Amino acid sequence: MMTRQAHEEAARASHLFGYFPYIERLSPRPDQIVHGSDNRQELERARAALDLAVDGDTVAIVSGGDPGVFAMAAAVCEAIENGPDAYRKVELVVIPGVTAMLAVAAAVGAPLGHDFCAINLSDNLKPFSIIEKRIVACTQTGMAMALYNPISRSRPWQLDAAFDIARLHLPKDTPVIFGRAAGRPDQRIETVALSKANGEKADMATCVIIGSAMTKVVERHGREPLVYTPRYWPEETGLPNVDAAP
Amino acid sequence: MMTRQAHEEAARASHLFGYFPYIERLSPRPDQIVHGSDNRQELERARAALDLAVDGDTVAIVSGGDPGVFAMAAAVCEAIENGPDAYRKVELVVIPGVTAMLAVAAAVGAPLGHDFCAINLSDNLKPFSIIEKRIVACTQTGMAMALYNPISRSRPWQLDAAFDIARLHLPKDTPVIFGRAAGRPDQRIETVALSKANGEKADMATCVIIGSAMTKVVERHGREPLVYTPRYWPEETGLPNVDAAP
Repeated sequence: MMTRQAHEEAARASHLFGYFPYIERLSPRPDQIVHGSDNRQELERARAALDLAVDGDTVAIVSGGDPGVFAMAAAVCEAIENGPDAYRKVELVVIPGVTAMLAVAAAVGAPLGHDFCAINLSDNLKPFSIIEKRIVACTQTGMAMALYNPISRSRPWQLDAAFDIARLHLPKDTPVIFGRAAGRPDQRIETVALSKANGEKADMATCVIIGSAMTKVVERHGREPLVYTPRYWPEETGLPNVDAAP
Repeated sequence: MMTRQAHEEAARASHLFGYFPYIERLSPRPDQIVHGSDNRQELERARAALDLAVDGDTVAIVSGGDPGVFAMAAAVCEAIENGPDAYRKVELVVIPGVTAMLAVAAAVGAPLGHDFCAINLSDNLKPFSIIEKRIVACTQTGMAMALYNPISRSRPWQLDAAFDIARLHLPKDTPVIFGRAAGRPDQRIETVALSKANGEKADMATCVIIGSAMTKVVERHGREPLVYTPRYWPEETGLPNVDAAP
């Protein structure tokens, strides 16, 4: 699912920065210097890459999916804003890509075919109280939701809390899609009703999509069901949770 | 910005359906039968393609960007759900792509680097009152917004109405990005403050991104400024509009 542009830019770079498994998938050439790192420490990685770029090197920072969606692009911009003046002279090119929610959505049909939100469920960088308000806002106004970074060893309860919040505002049979490693050979996609959704079905590599009250499951003989959210939202349907409020 | 997967699947097809300019960009071979059409009539197009697929033909329906985001995938699913039983036996593969908001965001930095929403501003398929509630929900909970289909000859006022709503809840200097034909040779990207945003800067091919209260503009000598939304949302910042409510 990589674009030609991404392939070409990665090939031009003398230095490759990023999380080890992402770089491995690029099959770097022997003359490319690989700076693999852990999946955290984004700012340190951005600064190390910018330091080399300031010295005139061509550097690529590799993200999975799209670098602008809960990945390295914002960290690089933050490093430039708060770093030495020389960082602002670096030529920065952000190459867009297929972000996880689009790959997961495509694997089941079109659950993001109507208005939707993308929410990073990690509360490392924001309080969970704000995440909670965003989930409520989305469910109440009829938007589907893609949840990134849903769970990790140090954040074991947030995804179940998100399901609990969603259950207050959405029908029991609202489809929830657990999409793991979408587009890779080990892809695993599972759709369950919101009433049966739980955090045990997800891991760090999973992107979770919670449908809206309009999202449908279309059964097919001998094939996986399709999950899609219709393009329309009829006037007479209203927004039950909002319109019923005093 | 097309993926290898999209190129390969389009090359496999005997029939290509879709809006004329999208198909032209694929440079179809002489042996591929092109069914170009207007940019509306999605359901009719989906049914015509499914009818050929039922007869055993290999058919590609071409969208710009990602077919799952305000494009053809939901229309195809809808046609399958409401069509003859034979439609459910068709092998359907949705190929994800780089949707417009990701290409526009990449062109300026990382304005979608924190939680965000994607809203189709066309009120052909839903009442504007619902769009309005979604815009309010996003601004109040601190999410950036990508607005698709912002304006057309038959929908001239909706984008300005959206800016007016956003101005009630966001700082005057919140960055607004008008991204036209992102990634194409005729790309045109313009960033203005929300106080100066108006519908005249957009056309049908524009995707508009409205930042959140946290979105920043980083000036650079001799280069276009960077626009990005930080990954973090500090607890002490709160959500002013929501937290101030009774």
